[in-house]
Amino acid sequence: MKANDPSRTSWVEVPKNSDFPIQNLPFGVFRTASNPAPRVCTAIGDSVVDLAVLNYLALFDELEINNTVFNNRFINDLMALGKAQTRALRDRIADLLDAKNGEARDLSWHFLHPMDKVEMLMPVQVGDYTDFYSSLEHATNVGSMFRPDNPLLPNWKHLPVGYHGRASSIVVSGTPIHRPMGQMKPADAETPVFGPTRLLDFELEMAFVIGKKTNMGQRISTAEAEDHIFGMMLFNDWSARDIQAWEYVPLGPFLGKNFASTVSPWVVTLDALEPFRTGSPEQDPTPLPYLQYTGKKNYDLNLEVEIKTEGGQAKTVCRSNFKYLYWNMCQQLAHHTVGGCNMNVGDMCASGTISGATPDSYGSMLELTWRGAKPLQMPDGSVRKFIEDGDTVTLKGWGESNGVRIGFGEAAGKVLPTLEG
Amino acid sequence: MKANDPSRTSWVEVPKNSDFPIQNLPFGVFRTASNPAPRVCTAIGDSVVDLAVLNYLALFDELEINNTVFNNRFINDLMALGKAQTRALRDRIADLLDAKNGEARDLSWHFLHPMDKVEMLMPVQVGDYTDFYSSLEHATNVGSMFRPDNPLLPNWKHLPVGYHGRASSIVVSGTPIHRPMGQMKPADAETPVFGPTRLLDFELEMAFVIGKKTNMGQRISTAEAEDHIFGMMLFNDWSARDIQAWEYVPLGPFLGKNFASTVSPWVVTLDALEPFRTGSPEQDPTPLPYLQYTGKKNYDLNLEVEIKTEGGQAKTVCRSNFKYLYWNMCQQLAHHTVGGCNMNVGDMCASGTISGATPDSYGSMLELTWRGAKPLQMPDGSVRKFIEDGDTVTLKGWGESNGVRIGFGEAAGKVLPTLEG
Repeated sequence: MKANDPSRTSWVEVPKNSDFPIQNLPFGVFRTASNPAPRVCTAIGDSVVDLAVLNYLALFDELEINNTVFNNRFINDLMALGKAQTRALRDRIADLLDAKNGEARDLSWHFLHPMDKVEMLMPVQVGDYTDFYSSLEHATNVGSMFRPDNPLLPNWKHLPVGYHGRASSIVVSGTPIHRPMGQMKPADAETPVFGPTRLLDFELEMAFVIGKKTNMGQRISTAEAEDHIFGMMLFNDWSARDIQAWEYVPLGPFLGKNFASTVSPWVVTLDALEPFRTGSPEQDPTPLPYLQYTGKKNYDLNLEVEIKTEGGQAKTVCRSNFKYLYWNMCQQLAHHTVGGCNMNVGDMCASGTISGATPDSYGSMLELTWRGAKPLQMPDGSVRKFIEDGDTVTLKGWGESNGVRIGFGEAAGKVLPTLEG
Repeated sequence: MKANDPSRTSWVEVPKNSDFPIQNLPFGVFRTASNPAPRVCTAIGDSVVDLAVLNYLALFDELEINNTVFNNRFINDLMALGKAQTRALRDRIADLLDAKNGEARDLSWHFLHPMDKVEMLMPVQVGDYTDFYSSLEHATNVGSMFRPDNPLLPNWKHLPVGYHGRASSIVVSGTPIHRPMGQMKPADAETPVFGPTRLLDFELEMAFVIGKKTNMGQRISTAEAEDHIFGMMLFNDWSARDIQAWEYVPLGPFLGKNFASTVSPWVVTLDALEPFRTGSPEQDPTPLPYLQYTGKKNYDLNLEVEIKTEGGQAKTVCRSNFKYLYWNMCQQLAHHTVGGCNMNVGDMCASGTISGATPDSYGSMLELTWRGAKPLQMPDGSVRKFIEDGDTVTLKGWGESNGVRIGFGEAAGKVLPTLEG
């Protein structure tokens, strides 16, 4: 991956601490006021690069990529090209944006847009979405609230527990979220009540996106998994804790989770994350052979959650890291397909809430405030047990190595009151 | 709906007890050896009617439907036309096939194909798939096996319990199913083992298909629900009971269900099922207002399951009825959307296993053999506790009223050994 070379710089200005140096080059979909047709783009510094225009300018000709891949509402067709072609494309984009290369620079007014002047769209058409539950700390925290004597269930260390989620309500950063209505049963009530959730929560997660399909019956081994994972995004799995608590036995979460999930607009390639590979927590007991793997399969990625009250200042309420996860993505994908479940390009798998060992690293309000027992103090003087109307929750994530920072942008969502009618 | 007139007959021969008289006219997608392009069709008697050809022959001209709806891999675009247009289309097809109408008869060699000479394809592109759990008898049977003192959980009579399932592995009748591998934990084992499921089961279900989309935040009331439901299909929710038992606490079924589901190739419109409307089991306690409804919202539809052993004869092992369901489709859809979860055209919701009160009406092997305690005797002398390799499981369903039988065809799947490698 030539694009990863840490010595590269770009002729496009990249502010210090930008998530998008020339070594990142994530993929997204955008449109502009003057051209409302969605098309595929990448990011550099504070700019968006229109890849459909670069292609139109014949700058990708040697790659022989069909131009419908760029003039496209989603990046699915681009991902489906396969890693050989998408790597070549990313390397070529890096060359075109390299400070040493003048090929495209004089034409930049054709394809470069200020990021704050474009509309970023949901970049992936998600077929199926699966949510895992792979943080030992999160599972233990939540388990200990509900089952103090037996926090971790017997299956948890033998397989990456997961369940199917709702794909239709995954939305891109910036989309407002309406507080959901639903049934819940207060502890002191005889019968359930109906109304807006009182316990609205975020969940700090990351998701990976499938770039290579399989057929029914086909398994993906832990060694093959990275060839099927195109890239990663930030993922906020909004949750209504009271609705979830009443509905989820025995078949799992349903309305407590399916009203909305927020993703960041950029899919950062697994290639760009290479510098952040790291080892995993030790697994004891040793998992069954199909879940074993060799090499470093985790990634050292800093994660943060900010809450901004209406008209107030933002406060970082959580600092966690992707590397804390007990089960890695390769194990998750090997498990998901071991029974023959087929994967399609665009399918999304989220990690589950990523909590660390210390209270400031807990990835949900449920854990941060310990079910409301320890409210968070906000800069405007108010306190939060859960998320209130008007609050904006923002997830951020980045890796840093050899002076290069590769970031995910943000996954932000503002909570609006329940829609009436 | 003129098409429903019970006095109508067709110039196409319709054998006695056919599922597809002129009053049915379901929608599907097919292709032929001589023309491998998928296109939309209907069924009459033992014949398939190519709707793309009828459209090409200008026989639908007055309906002003875009012809991409017929020359299409799926019926989604057709459903998205809305009920006013799809009703007009079904009425027009009925007119063209009516014994009193000569308009199309002389051209029939252009558009009529023997059903046994065509390949039926998966008719719907499923976005999200949800499985409910709406049979009181099934929930009670299964609950009493695992929790004899407390078979029905406290939430069950307050809301239609449901969970998200896997859309990618829903396949059309005739597609073989490979026995899935997975983790399971035998009762006498210390740690889980890995291998082919030993407890492969079917589940007799029906599914409804969404024909009208909603946006996030929008609720569908029980009164509006029928306008969003285009039609119904047979649905076999294949299940691996040992994999499911080990994995499903606390987040619900995952690999125990996601390896395959089999649907019938025809979507029978809700319009065609009008004659079979019937009342529902009484609901006590009265559900919350958003789950209340007026009128008859169930359908009297006979359901059967047949098992055919390799080289043996088929045996009907279950006779049930859709009307047994405690929660009806309108309640399911109202519940699904009450928190603002958005629906897309093509989304599918299955009923859950449809069991009746008597042991011969139980809709799964788990219940029919009571976890293997009462094996079924097969015609070839063998016995079945669960489904074995080489067995073909076939679901059938139909309503009958005023001498008119409206059927669903069949949802059949043969079980093959686990795929190695």
